[in-house]
Amino acid sequence: MRRLLIIGMGAGNPDHLTLQAVRALNTVDVFFVLDKGQQKGDLARLRKELCARHIADPSYRTVDVTDPVRDETIVDYGERVERWHRERAGIFEALLTNELGDDEVGGLLVWGDPSLYDSTLRVVERVLARGKVELDYEVIPGITSLQALTASHKIPLNHIGGAIHITTGRKLAEGAAETWLNAQDNVVVMLDGECAFNKVEGEDIEIFWAAYAGTEKEILVAGRLSEVKEEIERVRASARAANGWIMDTYVLRRRS
Amino acid sequence: MRRLLIIGMGAGNPDHLTLQAVRALNTVDVFFVLDKGQQKGDLARLRKELCARHIADPSYRTVDVTDPVRDETIVDYGERVERWHRERAGIFEALLTNELGDDEVGGLLVWGDPSLYDSTLRVVERVLARGKVELDYEVIPGITSLQALTASHKIPLNHIGGAIHITTGRKLAEGAAETWLNAQDNVVVMLDGECAFNKVEGEDIEIFWAAYAGTEKEILVAGRLSEVKEEIERVRASARAANGWIMDTYVLRRRS
Repeated sequence: MRRLLIIGMGAGNPDHLTLQAVRALNTVDVFFVLDKGQQKGDLARLRKELCARHIADPSYRTVDVTDPVRDETIVDYGERVERWHRERAGIFEALLTNELGDDEVGGLLVWGDPSLYDSTLRVVERVLARGKVELDYEVIPGITSLQALTASHKIPLNHIGGAIHITTGRKLAEGAAETWLNAQDNVVVMLDGECAFNKVEGEDIEIFWAAYAGTEKEILVAGRLSEVKEEIERVRASARAANGWIMDTYVLRRRS
Repeated sequence: MRRLLIIGMGAGNPDHLTLQAVRALNTVDVFFVLDKGQQKGDLARLRKELCARHIADPSYRTVDVTDPVRDETIVDYGERVERWHRERAGIFEALLTNELGDDEVGGLLVWGDPSLYDSTLRVVERVLARGKVELDYEVIPGITSLQALTASHKIPLNHIGGAIHITTGRKLAEGAAETWLNAQDNVVVMLDGECAFNKVEGEDIEIFWAAYAGTEKEILVAGRLSEVKEEIERVRASARAANGWIMDTYVLRRRS
């Protein structure tokens, strides 16, 4: 039976790789590499470094694929993502059929953890549901940018006995903070390209922000939201311009 | 300057240790080990195994400390935890003063990730705030039981663009699911000793449950909540009786 390993690689710190991920890398015959255009340079380099450093037998193959671009003319977000997943499923199906031998092990490297805001698992499920490819697959967890953030800021993610709400910039802009950001609970925001924290009000709100968390490029800003939000916006814009891409995350909480 | 490393060890799968954690283990001169009574046997054994396997120079010291027990006669949860933290801070302060030399590195091993429902960071902050101990400290993230769960069940943690609410059994029993468990969002429950999922109603709700996720003892149950909840309760009770302790987590979501 063909096997596919979906491997969480951590969020960019090469030392965040787990021993399980290292072992998994060493069993892979073919790596399938799908890159988003903008992050290509740095992340592709890091992935190559990780493979070169940790794989004992360099006889593995690599198949590079250009990730389809989401059609931004589709207004409905769910529909846009749905289309994109369908397209990706077609690509994966072709790859698994044409590039992976019957007894071989394929590898998909995922930044962060495959379960958190990543579409790989959904796309693989979809390929299997189509019924043309038979496959065993396994998921290997990885350290997320959120965990890199809390480690670098040295903060707990929750108040004592409190809840944690992980959401997107989109939902924050729609008012998620007003509902969830109470005295007991913290809000984590991922995938925020629009600095949605600007829409959150309250003098007692603190932000812990990190870009490229855990990596050499890491930038940390923390403080009262009203006092540091402009700094974050400025720092973010210039880092993004300098690197060509940015990956940032933040935690919002009320001061206790 | 004295240093203290707060090291996330993963949730019990020895291969979930990161390379950073392995490196950190190798710089520690003194490990401080605080164990909860009931989990002592298995977890102490695993920790010893991890140290024996991954530390090249076995000249490190270990100081075992009995974790203070929370005073269950204090009715208010916040006050009970507050007291417990104060007590732990006193113990940590004494340990760091008496057992850690001026140029030495101390190590605190934390199951899962130090930022998620763990009090170590809070207690260390409290020790520093008291001002008697000077110390540099560093946090090393670890794979959580939640990540082990999603990897074993091979599920994404979020719906597309949806939020994730991580909460406690206590809050679930108080009705958290009714507020947060909508079509778009998923609820993760940790620290549930009372099977609070029994209080959640709805024929379209699915549960993904794992005990000892990622370890040799792992038990997985998934399905429609109304159909599997009795099975989970039964399996949980017998695993707990057999092992003397249990660590379980689950994800609730609506079928899409």
